[in-house]
Amino acid sequence: MVARSVKIQEGTGPLVDALPFTDGEYQRRLTAIRSTMSRRGLDAFVSFTPENIYYVTGHDSPGYYFYQACVVSPTQRPVNVLRRIETTNTLGRSWSRLTVGYEDREDPIEATLGLLRELGVANRKIGAESTAWFIGPQRYIQLQDGIKQAGGQLVDASGTVEELRVIKTPEELTYIRAGARICEQAMRAGIEASREGTNENEVAAAIIAEMVRNGGEYAGLPPFITSGPRSSLCHATWAGRRYEGGDVLAYELPGVVKRYAAALVRMGIVGRPGEEVKRRAAASIEALESVIAAMKPGVTSDAVHQVTRRVFEKYGYSHLFGHRTGYSIGINYPPDWGEGHIMSIWAGDERPLRVGMTFHLVPGLFELGKHLINISETVLVTETGCEPVTHFPREMFVV
Amino acid sequence: MVARSVKIQEGTGPLVDALPFTDGEYQRRLTAIRSTMSRRGLDAFVSFTPENIYYVTGHDSPGYYFYQACVVSPTQRPVNVLRRIETTNTLGRSWSRLTVGYEDREDPIEATLGLLRELGVANRKIGAESTAWFIGPQRYIQLQDGIKQAGGQLVDASGTVEELRVIKTPEELTYIRAGARICEQAMRAGIEASREGTNENEVAAAIIAEMVRNGGEYAGLPPFITSGPRSSLCHATWAGRRYEGGDVLAYELPGVVKRYAAALVRMGIVGRPGEEVKRRAAASIEALESVIAAMKPGVTSDAVHQVTRRVFEKYGYSHLFGHRTGYSIGINYPPDWGEGHIMSIWAGDERPLRVGMTFHLVPGLFELGKHLINISETVLVTETGCEPVTHFPREMFVV
Repeated sequence: MVARSVKIQEGTGPLVDALPFTDGEYQRRLTAIRSTMSRRGLDAFVSFTPENIYYVTGHDSPGYYFYQACVVSPTQRPVNVLRRIETTNTLGRSWSRLTVGYEDREDPIEATLGLLRELGVANRKIGAESTAWFIGPQRYIQLQDGIKQAGGQLVDASGTVEELRVIKTPEELTYIRAGARICEQAMRAGIEASREGTNENEVAAAIIAEMVRNGGEYAGLPPFITSGPRSSLCHATWAGRRYEGGDVLAYELPGVVKRYAAALVRMGIVGRPGEEVKRRAAASIEALESVIAAMKPGVTSDAVHQVTRRVFEKYGYSHLFGHRTGYSIGINYPPDWGEGHIMSIWAGDERPLRVGMTFHLVPGLFELGKHLINISETVLVTETGCEPVTHFPREMFVV
Repeated sequence: MVARSVKIQEGTGPLVDALPFTDGEYQRRLTAIRSTMSRRGLDAFVSFTPENIYYVTGHDSPGYYFYQACVVSPTQRPVNVLRRIETTNTLGRSWSRLTVGYEDREDPIEATLGLLRELGVANRKIGAESTAWFIGPQRYIQLQDGIKQAGGQLVDASGTVEELRVIKTPEELTYIRAGARICEQAMRAGIEASREGTNENEVAAAIIAEMVRNGGEYAGLPPFITSGPRSSLCHATWAGRRYEGGDVLAYELPGVVKRYAAALVRMGIVGRPGEEVKRRAAASIEALESVIAAMKPGVTSDAVHQVTRRVFEKYGYSHLFGHRTGYSIGINYPPDWGEGHIMSIWAGDERPLRVGMTFHLVPGLFELGKHLINISETVLVTETGCEPVTHFPREMFVV
């Protein structure tokens, strides 16, 4: 195979969209990645993960259903390998503004190998994300083989960017707080639209319109808006179901600004809540508040999760609580608005909480065919404890 | 390592949501997959792809940021390996209703290997999707090694479901046509909301609210709603930009019903269009209509693409046309609303069009920093030619 030679293009005209962060923030991120590379003896680092590529270069597009990769080398600014029409986003609105484009039917791994040669690192030790989604096993192996043929070596460097992303800076927190305001406004709009005889679609339309009008961007997952037994289907959302008296309503809403998310869950009831629903809501609120009280730097993920577990055990609801207490939240692209794979609050995880971590806490109770009961909050770990970022009455709403 | 034993759970209560297809449709799909398996000598087939899992089992959830897999064996109904709380969707609203759940921190590959043993096929020849996204290279290799240790063999069987999905049945076309109605209604709402002095967010709110009220589901990509130079950023969407006189407006809208998409692009102008914008819009419309006239069973993908290319060449716009003419469209989950990786209309692809294929045709002209000009249609390949599925005036709108 003849090696493909590539040309690195640079964006030079005025930016079409302003950058979300200062130059200092991007420089700091790049320096930290290079420091990890140096520690691991890597001459290049390749990311395939939309969140990481946005974090490092500012490249923002949902078009990663075509292969994309960001190559960080020790001296050159990061270069994004992109489908040609997607290069507009790196050339026209990114921090790094360097890209290699490939045509729709060209082999993007060949383009990536070409770039590694162009950067003079193809025959060196290169780290890449072997746990990433948007490369696919077949292409990853092709990249590995290509680097081997060039005299280099591909090793796993998953987590290189994630370990930075998990701690939020003041600039990042500004966007997460703005996202929280969007969640709260949308939740209010949703509750106002909720009444017997309306349906999930009408309420979803009111919620999403409010989000978008207030500057909410598309999120990594849709808002979850369900009623009655449909709320018990994990991650189901609007499907036109009519609201009936006695229905539990469950709304889980993201607020996304500059790709940073906050999220908020509230549940309510059409008409008068029964005793069991009231008791479950009380348990969820007690779990949430106990967890917030327990969270502070140094406490482990597992220790916090045990707080939730004990509250639900006390109520006799252990069988209805089948997942983690919470997940890290920050930059998001579909198919997830959280970053729970980086850090979660769950059983058996002995990693400590650290200042600047943000979580969406979701102590929910699912009963299939019946309902979901869940009251959540997005929170920030501070020097002294845990600060709620979302602010909304912690109660079951009644319509 | 001690082999994990698994228990297959079966949903038995009433379905929480009605199935989107008849039993006959699902049976036909399963029979076709088993026929491919038999032809390739496979004793099991494993899919990691949300669209394929929905196609085969009816399991519908955006929660595939946790590992999911569907295992098809020669005799048993398909079984989905799912995060425990996601099993609600297979137990409570799927066709197959068989699942193996794993806990949040359990190893899902171990659960998959356990299921393969339970089905008695772990030591046989198993096909899986080595080009799938939501497995990741590391886990794919772990699965491969586990099967090898069990005395079996994992081979690539990518495309097994996709080759069925590319041809739409009458039941599927009903949903795509319903999606087209949603695109049209939303486009009308968007045009009505567009005027000098409004902004992208207000228009996006009007469009999405109209979609959702009419039964539109979340799509694999957000709607793309941009104005002025922002339209030239591929796959950019609303960011609050104010509409000014002379702005090009570009709206690309999905309509999704039961996970099946149609899509529609129209562009417009605030105030009076200049000659160059008018000429580019005319070129896009001419390309679209020439392509529709050329499409029929037996004509190759490349031959159709050359029609677009020639129209733009005639106008002197070859340098502004940087991508494919169109892509197959059908079942969609984020991060794509198309299925262009299954079939596209693009250069050098000698596969013929076939009856029942559906495409979104997008003969667009991008100029970075300036605008996108694009007029599209979703179409169906029929016995005699090509039938537009979306119906909307093929013109630049003026507001």
